[in-house]
Amino acid sequence: MTTPPPARVGDPTDAIDTPALVIDLDAFERNLDRMAAFSHDTGIRVRPHAKTHKSPAVARQQMQRGAVGQCCQKVGEAEVLVHGGINNVLVSNQIVGANKVARLAALARRAWIGVCADDPIQVKAYGEAARRAQVELHVLVEIDVGAARCGVMPGAPAVELAKYIADTPGLVFEGLQAYHGSAQHIRGHRERRAAIVTAAQAVQTTSEKLGAAGFDCRTIGGAGTGSFRFETETGLWNELQPGSYCFLDADYARNLDDSGVERTEFEHALFVASTVMSASAPGRAVVDAGHKASAIDSGLPTLWKRPDVSYAGAADEHGKLSLGAGAAKLGLGDRVWLVPGHVDPTVNLHDWYVGVRGGLENGVVECLWPVAARGAGT
Amino acid sequence: MTTPPPARVGDPTDAIDTPALVIDLDAFERNLDRMAAFSHDTGIRVRPHAKTHKSPAVARQQMQRGAVGQCCQKVGEAEVLVHGGINNVLVSNQIVGANKVARLAALARRAWIGVCADDPIQVKAYGEAARRAQVELHVLVEIDVGAARCGVMPGAPAVELAKYIADTPGLVFEGLQAYHGSAQHIRGHRERRAAIVTAAQAVQTTSEKLGAAGFDCRTIGGAGTGSFRFETETGLWNELQPGSYCFLDADYARNLDDSGVERTEFEHALFVASTVMSASAPGRAVVDAGHKASAIDSGLPTLWKRPDVSYAGAADEHGKLSLGAGAAKLGLGDRVWLVPGHVDPTVNLHDWYVGVRGGLENGVVECLWPVAARGAGT
Repeated sequence: MTTPPPARVGDPTDAIDTPALVIDLDAFERNLDRMAAFSHDTGIRVRPHAKTHKSPAVARQQMQRGAVGQCCQKVGEAEVLVHGGINNVLVSNQIVGANKVARLAALARRAWIGVCADDPIQVKAYGEAARRAQVELHVLVEIDVGAARCGVMPGAPAVELAKYIADTPGLVFEGLQAYHGSAQHIRGHRERRAAIVTAAQAVQTTSEKLGAAGFDCRTIGGAGTGSFRFETETGLWNELQPGSYCFLDADYARNLDDSGVERTEFEHALFVASTVMSASAPGRAVVDAGHKASAIDSGLPTLWKRPDVSYAGAADEHGKLSLGAGAAKLGLGDRVWLVPGHVDPTVNLHDWYVGVRGGLENGVVECLWPVAARGAGT
Repeated sequence: MTTPPPARVGDPTDAIDTPALVIDLDAFERNLDRMAAFSHDTGIRVRPHAKTHKSPAVARQQMQRGAVGQCCQKVGEAEVLVHGGINNVLVSNQIVGANKVARLAALARRAWIGVCADDPIQVKAYGEAARRAQVELHVLVEIDVGAARCGVMPGAPAVELAKYIADTPGLVFEGLQAYHGSAQHIRGHRERRAAIVTAAQAVQTTSEKLGAAGFDCRTIGGAGTGSFRFETETGLWNELQPGSYCFLDADYARNLDDSGVERTEFEHALFVASTVMSASAPGRAVVDAGHKASAIDSGLPTLWKRPDVSYAGAADEHGKLSLGAGAAKLGLGDRVWLVPGHVDPTVNLHDWYVGVRGGLENGVVECLWPVAARGAGT
């Protein structure tokens, strides 16, 4: 079910068939460099999230710049990463189901594997699978730091689960998973920081109680592209898990900086190339990329360098563009570059990254990378 | 990038790994039978839309029951259908780009191929490609019957484009494409019918003007699962293009019948199997199917036969369930069957259909069908 790649290496960018998932390699590498410099300057470990890119090719470039490993959410993603050469993978999620847990343990024969827990039932299953596979699994206790989704409550419940992990042969207690997902997209800089300050209190309480009970947290992990500077400021977290920073998206670009301006320290590096395929009425154009090509769970895509045109509505295979007053005409065949509303689910719609060098308009296709873990949901 | 299938033929349904895209074959076949009976009883042709199912296996079952062919939106989908044995495919969309049009013409050496146009530029390109491939392409003029997306205005502009098609060697003027997409989801029965009555006026005006100019419409196509009875009532359309009826979804199930009740003549036949993987707080459970497993563009999924539980929020890989007062407990490992909000983009997230016989709870896996045109977006 893999589709043919929409371009060939060496093609000019205007020959890329559409819709296509295109990386501006120059911007992408600058994003990777920025995060690597932050890690170097602060001494904090970075473990980028592969739920965003689903690609060992991207993961290797992050690790060549100093990332300690990768995160992912699914065993299927971990399999693609490990078999693609990544030797250190944390599944930052709970895994339930005998078959899935056995697959996870099998990976630990080939790589360092971590996983999260928020219930003794998961821990028991992890231990049985680890012993059967004759491996060690590193288990983090996930605590709920404000997202009200997964995780035990901070403090005593986390200590209790840590004890159970430490007492289970085949498992190693690794530390805490303390990720505040919903904080990433709080627009206001002060409010976003405040959410992480609150999360930090939960982390501090829990790690003190763990310490009193004789447990050392080798890892306190969490943070995302929207908040990683705040977690770092607290001095409590020692491992960051940002995903989107390598590509950025329209949603993250709406976060405000400390002066109240929409600004991030990363650049848009991922685009959906699209083509105008109908323009039958004035003020309107329709492109060949709808929400089967660019995910809309976090808002519609925006148009790259066309402030005179807005993406007004997405159907499955159609994107309706609205031309503002005085907008330059969009005719049949014209190329439009979309900035996805949300990169993670957009990447998951495509089989291929088309990597271009020298910019979107006049660049050249330098590489085709498979989105190797696309659809790896189990 | 094709993922391993989440089950094996012969497995009991509770052994299906999750998340998985599951067809209740009994309900699915009843849906196909109902549409076939409608076509037989009314004498109207049915050409189901493969943008929903993306599968020659499903297409063949529709055609064995009398469907005249298939529709799709993309050349990539048409390729999968034709090479999968479907000999009659209409791309119910405009195709722009020399490479795409050449691929479309190449298919016409193996099957009857139709395509839509709303601009002479498209028609010119279709003609050149058809002559180069030494084939005939059947071209429908798309008219805008109310969706304000693609299509020329009804009446004279359609006649003008029909003349251009008829005058272009390599092309055959086939008729009109008159699909009212946005009408499908108008909840009220009377309001939904009214939208189609308005569309019918546009069709009638246009076909009269075409007739006066000497053009016969072999095909007047359109209609979807939400409106096909209304198009049929008018006597103007002669070919229906419903897609979702074979599976149904939560969104279509919210349409009202003529007594104001949420009721359709089709059954839910497509589900996303999911598993509870965290249940760390009272009143809450988290399943392993978020919006990378069940699309949310037309609303969140609903829970099958669990009115006491609602799907309250979707993240990429997590679905948060909210248990109502008095709800039966959901524990780790429990199976939950989701009814997707919108089937078409949900199908496009998966590589495999798991076909089960004998019901979801105690059935057996009878077949695994590839979602062969998943991601076929170009």
